[in-house]
Amino acid sequence: MKVGILGIDGYLGWSLCLKLLDRGHRVVGIDNFFRRRAVEDLGSQSVIPISSMEERIEAANGEISFEEGSTLDFDFLSEFIEKHNLDVIANLAQQPSAAYSMRGVEEATFTQENNVCGGLNLLWATKNKDIPIVTIGTLGEYGCPSMNIPEGFFKVEYEGMEDILPFPKQGPSFYHVSKQQTTDNVWFACRTWVMRVTDVMQGVVYGTRTPEMEDSKLRTRFDIDECFGTAINRFVASAVSEHPITVYGTGMQKRGYIPLRDSMECLRLIIENPPNYEDSYHGHRVINQFHEYYSINELAEKVKKIGEEEFDLSVEVRNLENPRIEPEYHYYEPKHEKLQKMGYEPSTTLEEELKIMFEDLLEHKDRIVKEKIVPKIRWRE
Amino acid sequence: MKVGILGIDGYLGWSLCLKLLDRGHRVVGIDNFFRRRAVEDLGSQSVIPISSMEERIEAANGEISFEEGSTLDFDFLSEFIEKHNLDVIANLAQQPSAAYSMRGVEEATFTQENNVCGGLNLLWATKNKDIPIVTIGTLGEYGCPSMNIPEGFFKVEYEGMEDILPFPKQGPSFYHVSKQQTTDNVWFACRTWVMRVTDVMQGVVYGTRTPEMEDSKLRTRFDIDECFGTAINRFVASAVSEHPITVYGTGMQKRGYIPLRDSMECLRLIIENPPNYEDSYHGHRVINQFHEYYSINELAEKVKKIGEEEFDLSVEVRNLENPRIEPEYHYYEPKHEKLQKMGYEPSTTLEEELKIMFEDLLEHKDRIVKEKIVPKIRWRE
Repeated sequence: MKVGILGIDGYLGWSLCLKLLDRGHRVVGIDNFFRRRAVEDLGSQSVIPISSMEERIEAANGEISFEEGSTLDFDFLSEFIEKHNLDVIANLAQQPSAAYSMRGVEEATFTQENNVCGGLNLLWATKNKDIPIVTIGTLGEYGCPSMNIPEGFFKVEYEGMEDILPFPKQGPSFYHVSKQQTTDNVWFACRTWVMRVTDVMQGVVYGTRTPEMEDSKLRTRFDIDECFGTAINRFVASAVSEHPITVYGTGMQKRGYIPLRDSMECLRLIIENPPNYEDSYHGHRVINQFHEYYSINELAEKVKKIGEEEFDLSVEVRNLENPRIEPEYHYYEPKHEKLQKMGYEPSTTLEEELKIMFEDLLEHKDRIVKEKIVPKIRWRE
Repeated sequence: MKVGILGIDGYLGWSLCLKLLDRGHRVVGIDNFFRRRAVEDLGSQSVIPISSMEERIEAANGEISFEEGSTLDFDFLSEFIEKHNLDVIANLAQQPSAAYSMRGVEEATFTQENNVCGGLNLLWATKNKDIPIVTIGTLGEYGCPSMNIPEGFFKVEYEGMEDILPFPKQGPSFYHVSKQQTTDNVWFACRTWVMRVTDVMQGVVYGTRTPEMEDSKLRTRFDIDECFGTAINRFVASAVSEHPITVYGTGMQKRGYIPLRDSMECLRLIIENPPNYEDSYHGHRVINQFHEYYSINELAEKVKKIGEEEFDLSVEVRNLENPRIEPEYHYYEPKHEKLQKMGYEPSTTLEEELKIMFEDLLEHKDRIVKEKIVPKIRWRE
């Protein structure tokens, strides 16, 4: 297959590129290097050193073609799609941080404009082309309703009548809302044009590597700052650098998580098996993609235990006033059956993955900008 | 009260300004004159001649302060809000046409950027200020589910558990989706910051005038082109100019409608009575605002009957292939109880209003650019 990856330079984008090359696919990608700039601007850096795109392409074992540019540039994007004869396009060209989107009006606007209008450009650019699209949403779009969470659609009964409707979304940041907004555009486009789009409601991804990253020039980025560092990644970096693990609020919040290597395996399955009329609703296939869910406290305790028992570190867990406005004590039961039916089996456990992360991060301990771990962005002053 | 109207120059914005002045309120407004330019660019014009903003302000009976600018300019918008000590802000600075949003990628993007990011700017600019906001959505956001449509939120039971959730949205154009996207931002802001926002899910507005428009310099615009001319308005203009009434598809589609004068009365009630903790959900008050619902066929027949019987016109109704992708035969039962509880009583009937429209439009028959009535924009090629 020839796969287009929009946002090929990111944490997930680059990992996906290597995964697809390993499967014998050809990859063409675009990126505007927003993430590299944004992390630098925040005064942080990728803890795992990463190569330039040129070095990456040279070191990679397979055919990659790359162009610098943004999904916000419609002419650039549609020329790119026109030129390559793509079998699938995965849109990972997203501003992926909730905290970043809450920093101020400029960041909130950039997040929604980039994520929503970039995705809108992709829909217009692929209209009538029958190229399956993969778009990366987040499990967080659903919020924390007091009921099970289906995979996208559910049967609703209301005042004696029934219909199949999209599950209501209540994400906890302007970033999460940007993903809901994209889901709304995608669902409209699927109903109106003839399209096949997989909307991946992804859990929080963690991990320092995938099997395709033995060569140090092929490593993907790993961020630990308050914006781009997600829970488990930030916790292990804290433990390694002997900074307290920062638990927001009571730490009772539950979320779904998935290791980077399994996330890539899931995306591969999704890319190699586009939606059909059985597993989608009018061409819109919504998939909840996560391995297990944990509370923040469970995660902090697991990281502490492994850090102390296996790596002889002294690990402190500290509860901070929650900078976010979010329910802390809530029901949480999202379904995740579709990927299992497609053949996904977890390849690792949280504990195994944590050990690899500790090893990888201890090697680059000096690159952890500790003061960037502590949250300064608050959802409400 | 001192009320800010964003988009004060539009069909609704100007009518609202006059209504509020008549009630003794002070009005401050902004507009970037997008609508005047867009209609001109389409080769059409307002059938009712309208004055410039300067002339309008001079002719108006009350205090209006006006500045030219866009809600997309955050600094301009927040300075405007900072400067005036506003009691309420109504955001009508919207690209309001479904067809326009489907014309091409540029128009789709402009619609979502203007409507969503402009609204996002308003949320950030009023954060912590406790200024009630009125934002104009559309009944169309709900789509046509096979069940009653509540006013915003509903109690859902799913797999044995219950919660109150936002009703799922399935609007039929990128314009409608932009309104869903705004609703998502508003609901997030209400849950997260302390805000009071009324989200008006408005039916299609029709009519040529309100009681405050006796002076010809005070008339509001009236469009009949395929983009900015809505169903009833376009139908009466067709009948007057002896152009066939263009029914899209079978004409079985049902929608909620409200006369301009009643829409203004509803907005007045909403503005004078901001949300409180009983009539909103965390400060988010969703109101379905319409008078009655009709099928397109019923409307076409009513317009034909009045045109022929009262104005001696020969009126043809012609079914066109539907340029839109939308369900034509569907259940439709949106609730509208909140405005009634607030004191709204319909002041007129469709028939009475149609007669006034015929009289007003016959006077300006020569200004109807007939060839702009026929739809050229198609949802799917």
